[in-house]
Amino acid sequence: MQYGSVEAGGTKFVCAIGNDDYQIKDQIQFPTTTPKETIQRVIDYFSQFQIDALGIASFGPIETRRNSPQYGYITTTPKKGWQNTNFVGLIKSGLKMPISWTTDVNSAAFGEYVMTTLFNEQISSVVYYTIGTGVGAGVVVDGKFVGSLGHLEMGHVLVKRHPADLDFLGICPYHKDCLEGLVSGPTFEARLGNSGKDVPFTNPVWDILAYYVAQAAMDTTLSFRPDKIVFGGGVTSENFLNKVRQEFSALLNDYLPTPKLEHYISLPAVKDNGSATVGNFFLAARLLKE
Amino acid sequence: MQYGSVEAGGTKFVCAIGNDDYQIKDQIQFPTTTPKETIQRVIDYFSQFQIDALGIASFGPIETRRNSPQYGYITTTPKKGWQNTNFVGLIKSGLKMPISWTTDVNSAAFGEYVMTTLFNEQISSVVYYTIGTGVGAGVVVDGKFVGSLGHLEMGHVLVKRHPADLDFLGICPYHKDCLEGLVSGPTFEARLGNSGKDVPFTNPVWDILAYYVAQAAMDTTLSFRPDKIVFGGGVTSENFLNKVRQEFSALLNDYLPTPKLEHYISLPAVKDNGSATVGNFFLAARLLKE
Repeated sequence: MQYGSVEAGGTKFVCAIGNDDYQIKDQIQFPTTTPKETIQRVIDYFSQFQIDALGIASFGPIETRRNSPQYGYITTTPKKGWQNTNFVGLIKSGLKMPISWTTDVNSAAFGEYVMTTLFNEQISSVVYYTIGTGVGAGVVVDGKFVGSLGHLEMGHVLVKRHPADLDFLGICPYHKDCLEGLVSGPTFEARLGNSGKDVPFTNPVWDILAYYVAQAAMDTTLSFRPDKIVFGGGVTSENFLNKVRQEFSALLNDYLPTPKLEHYISLPAVKDNGSATVGNFFLAARLLKE
Repeated sequence: MQYGSVEAGGTKFVCAIGNDDYQIKDQIQFPTTTPKETIQRVIDYFSQFQIDALGIASFGPIETRRNSPQYGYITTTPKKGWQNTNFVGLIKSGLKMPISWTTDVNSAAFGEYVMTTLFNEQISSVVYYTIGTGVGAGVVVDGKFVGSLGHLEMGHVLVKRHPADLDFLGICPYHKDCLEGLVSGPTFEARLGNSGKDVPFTNPVWDILAYYVAQAAMDTTLSFRPDKIVFGGGVTSENFLNKVRQEFSALLNDYLPTPKLEHYISLPAVKDNGSATVGNFFLAARLLKE
């Protein structure tokens, strides 16, 4: 069998061809322009190959409830021109095959779940956070995504302010004190006028961010007791996660046992931001089996 | 079929007999003394009846993972004399039948899940919080409890301080700013020297508590997108939940659609703290079917 993967991001689309071993046999990327033009490029790309099912992982918010008339739509996204786009419908007009549809972070969570299960001991749950332009999370428990009324929005959980960060307004237009508004990539420009990659680890802003991310890890631990919490996205790194682990230990204060923190709070097992592609291949394959 | 239910609390035990209609046919309660004496009373009570399976809902922390050598134990509880008690093992020495074993809040969550499904539209997830002597929560998604590494501990999620509550130290010995430390029943004595039931709703302490509980409801919404969030326990009431709903709306700030708040954030559907008993009957029945 051969599967297609679409990672639909607000800046670029990545399309890939893979098989049951989750190996990428071909890949292409192009900028996100209008829905019509961009989705036509997706159709044109996959039309060149013999594929049996397609997995789509999209930026959001999207409608993922199968019983909704809006199933398959990108809904109230801030991305200009993409509000209320019937993504799956447009794809189906050009590609006749089973299509799985979920959020970018859900697919990434699934990719991590699959890869961890393949190479390590059996696990039954993974929480995956991306910290990049935005902050989002997906949760897989026993092979299913959590979320009855729609996909999760854990980027907007509230956090307690770091004492050295009380004056920062946050950049979320909805919430003054949510994770995304305080730790996403653009907060570096907002706080320091610099891109995050130009800010050395000696800058105390990294401690501030680690304090917030550690709160998310703590609340995730208490709320899901997951086997693993994975942090992907451009803001994360092993150095940063070391700070997060330290803050996490201080906050949790030995209230609960956890696995070794180096494994429990970790970077993605799939390298080069490939978690969602692996997840898409798996979800497409599963859909075909159903 | 006939089922037994044990609600094991730190202060008292409630044992009940029920059937497939979740009707209580007999009930008894007695104080929690030593494990040996208390569990013997449980065995003596149920020995009088013909029952096919037993559901136990216990105070914690407890070991719920079936693959653990400590499965069936109350583990590191602060309750004197009960640490490391092989609860299920002791019960099994006197009662030969299938026994389901979970936390008090998990059983209550299941009871609410079952009752809502019986009488209202189909739902697939419920989050149940108890706010009483302590704060705990259970989550049911698609008929299963969430929690891979053990049961949830959502009473200890961190919250942001109310501006009028900055000087209160909180009463959790582990965390300065967790939900349990700021909203559980004993916080009334700690803040005001009075029991909560003697504090009128005009006292601003109720607004402070509602602000914290609303944060928990918001983070629960973002983290689970559940069909329903139920608040039980001695601190809650319809008046209190009205304050919580107001604070919740202000915090969420229309970021996500939710069901009507009167239904979404609600008191238990099962009256008189009976949610866990219904859950126990159901879990016992399910175990028997397996």
